[in-house]
Amino acid sequence: MSLKIRHLLGLEGVSADDIALILDTAVSFKEVLSRTIPKVPTLRGVTVVNLFYEPSTRTRISFELAEKRLSADTINFSTSGSSVAKGESLKDTVWNIEAMKIDIVVIRHQAAGSPHYLAECCSSTIINAGDGAHEHPTQGLLDMYTIREKYGKIEGLKVVIIGDIKHSRVARSNIWGLLTMGADVSVCGPPTLLPVEMEKFGVKVFDDLDEALMGADVVNVLRIQKERQQGGLLPSLREYNRFYGITRERLKNLNENFTIMHPGPMNRGVEISSEVAEAPYSVILPQVTNGVAVRMAILYLLSARRGKVDEG
Amino acid sequence: MSLKIRHLLGLEGVSADDIALILDTAVSFKEVLSRTIPKVPTLRGVTVVNLFYEPSTRTRISFELAEKRLSADTINFSTSGSSVAKGESLKDTVWNIEAMKIDIVVIRHQAAGSPHYLAECCSSTIINAGDGAHEHPTQGLLDMYTIREKYGKIEGLKVVIIGDIKHSRVARSNIWGLLTMGADVSVCGPPTLLPVEMEKFGVKVFDDLDEALMGADVVNVLRIQKERQQGGLLPSLREYNRFYGITRERLKNLNENFTIMHPGPMNRGVEISSEVAEAPYSVILPQVTNGVAVRMAILYLLSARRGKVDEG
Amino acid sequence: MSLKIRHLLGLEGVSADDIALILDTAVSFKEVLSRTIPKVPTLRGVTVVNLFYEPSTRTRISFELAEKRLSADTINFSTSGSSVAKGESLKDTVWNIEAMKIDIVVIRHQAAGSPHYLAECCSSTIINAGDGAHEHPTQGLLDMYTIREKYGKIEGLKVVIIGDIKHSRVARSNIWGLLTMGADVSVCGPPTLLPVEMEKFGVKVFDDLDEALMGADVVNVLRIQKERQQGGLLPSLREYNRFYGITRERLKNLNENFTIMHPGPMNRGVEISSEVAEAPYSVILPQVTNGVAVRMAILYLLSARRGKVDEG
Repeated sequence: MSLKIRHLLGLEGVSADDIALILDTAVSFKEVLSRTIPKVPTLRGVTVVNLFYEPSTRTRISFELAEKRLSADTINFSTSGSSVAKGESLKDTVWNIEAMKIDIVVIRHQAAGSPHYLAECCSSTIINAGDGAHEHPTQGLLDMYTIREKYGKIEGLKVVIIGDIKHSRVARSNIWGLLTMGADVSVCGPPTLLPVEMEKFGVKVFDDLDEALMGADVVNVLRIQKERQQGGLLPSLREYNRFYGITRERLKNLNENFTIMHPGPMNRGVEISSEVAEAPYSVILPQVTNGVAVRMAILYLLSARRGKVDEG
Repeated sequence: MSLKIRHLLGLEGVSADDIALILDTAVSFKEVLSRTIPKVPTLRGVTVVNLFYEPSTRTRISFELAEKRLSADTINFSTSGSSVAKGESLKDTVWNIEAMKIDIVVIRHQAAGSPHYLAECCSSTIINAGDGAHEHPTQGLLDMYTIREKYGKIEGLKVVIIGDIKHSRVARSNIWGLLTMGADVSVCGPPTLLPVEMEKFGVKVFDDLDEALMGADVVNVLRIQKERQQGGLLPSLREYNRFYGITRERLKNLNENFTIMHPGPMNRGVEISSEVAEAPYSVILPQVTNGVAVRMAILYLLSARRGKVDEG
Repeated sequence: MSLKIRHLLGLEGVSADDIALILDTAVSFKEVLSRTIPKVPTLRGVTVVNLFYEPSTRTRISFELAEKRLSADTINFSTSGSSVAKGESLKDTVWNIEAMKIDIVVIRHQAAGSPHYLAECCSSTIINAGDGAHEHPTQGLLDMYTIREKYGKIEGLKVVIIGDIKHSRVARSNIWGLLTMGADVSVCGPPTLLPVEMEKFGVKVFDDLDEALMGADVVNVLRIQKERQQGGLLPSLREYNRFYGITRERLKNLNENFTIMHPGPMNRGVEISSEVAEAPYSVILPQVTNGVAVRMAILYLLSARRGKVDEG
């Protein structure tokens, strides 16, 4: 079995077969991660550049770990200290990297669509690690992996995503992936932060939190970007917390065996209380662990598409 | 033999047996470093994150080298470019790193006690690479290694530490380690930069340099933090140099076969003259070499405590 | 065969035999780069520090790739986040790195001559990755490699270098290398940016572009440093483009089978048009590819001089 996609640019348009293959493959990599020596030689000789134009802790480390555990050679590159300061275009930077015979470029960039542009203009495999407010497909996949690991399925579950849906690449990737896999998806947040066009894809849109949570299985709590306040799109953080903050009291209408997720980094006491974040129904840390396994699966499957996997 | 400590948070409270075991182990790693291929597979599959919240050249490179010479996988992380910018708490950052199944976290942080806090709230092994003005235990150990290498012992030697004792994590780690190993420890500096509480642990405190140096074997010259001047705690650098700068003339009352140490980076012409720094009795560069061997020993022994060492 | 030079500080004074040996060796490494697993164990156990005091994308990544494809251990170090912030001298930084038993230091520094200074004061092998406006010898070598790959020779070819010759380390390294290898070298640019002393070494100097290009085989277009404008040395970018910008129209007097080169990063529309940069006669991307092979050759040959190569 091999992927139909040649790059991972977003989850919009990715088939259920491709998503299922990635999640299935991640199961075996998660087993690798639990070994005493959690390392396989699978991507020996494959070179990956991590090209981060935006600050990142967990995503960059998670990718770098995934690459190292697969024995790939990794090169890190971040905006500061690079010739981006010299005004080189993204296209020229990537052409150059490609001319150096790099196999895979993992890119995070503030401009929506930049990974797609690169995929068109160079022959390296592109993995989107977050492009503006557009998509963050590996986050969507690890969230689905975490859900499937707990419930054994995704289809038919009611998943509610809470927060600034409009500006969230995490929300967007979750929505596309979950819809493809047959989940019942709702979003909830302040009206100024809700995208209306979602409804036509079958996503339910709520501005009342309690209504949104009614009968839900999974609650995915997004990080509030404090910068949004300045744009007047967000009330005060205290207001936000009162209306949309997930505390123990708000969970009463959820289904039995419900799950709380958060992509991190958390603003404890704003969009989520510490009590909820650390409760047994929270899978926030498993999400992080699964992130490495899911990224290993993607790196492996896309390298196999290039014919670069050492099956020996 | 194995360490009693599970983390290296500081030298205060670490037993003489543990210190001796680290120094003994470092002897064999120093031999490894002199080989044509100075590399052993000992920590294959062990993942170490170097988490540096403060600028560092030598300590970070020394740790990274130690890790690579042991064949560990290393991941670097520094404040700029990380989601610390997004306001994530240290605890959440480390929980996340831990969820990624990292074995060892080497941390440098401006807040005293932060490594201890981490050791309590996560299950990775923590190594303190400098926490505020508190401790810098690997520096203390490499200083003791260097002394023992030259004299064959630590017990009974008279060691004088010169400079801003109050704000120095290097001084503090040296003092605790040297006292435990039976050295005769003195400190000397401007009265505003001397901690009075030291005397009750048996440390002699001097503000007159010539008096302090009388009959000393080892002089450990601390770096002057020029920033201290602004706080009014330090006279001008010229004044400091006149009263506490180590020049050839000040060395006349030392014991035969005396030794000059400095943890670096040096302010030549301020706390130490170039002539002294480069003289045969200076072990400033051997300290750097020994730093790698000592850090290899610590990484090895703490990994063995985790059951993660490949003895094959 | 082995190199006469022990360091690569510049191309001035490097013999034709040494240059030919580097270029010949690079041919076999370029073959390695085209393998499925483009990696050899040649420098296993050799440690290289990439010490970059100036921003860089391609040069740093190219060196790091070359090191990894040779199985060396690499450590990156850039100004921000290092104790350079603490005011340590370059000499002390490098002594320390040397005390850590580093084999090779790749250094980029704003001060002309700093690699030479290091080569004198420490025993590590030094590779200059660009020192101020002085030399950038690996760029000169990869440019010569690219010329030789296309024409089968360097001797007798007419090479014109266009731009800010006075402040260009790329120009300087090209000139020394090309003269040694028997090329016919011209330079061309605004009179304020031309070094007059070049003529006594047999370099032809032009301020008229069409005249300079007459009968040329290779045109090496330098990047315009926009900062130069502030010093009044450069007319407006539009003026520069009109008089010295390389567009299709300017190429009419070149020899058949001519070649366009650019060291990157390009200012498209200033010193070179996009049309020229992407035309079949442009070897700008092959230059990047060859850069990795040439740097592998240098790392290999200089390590062999140290007796550190694993021939097994």
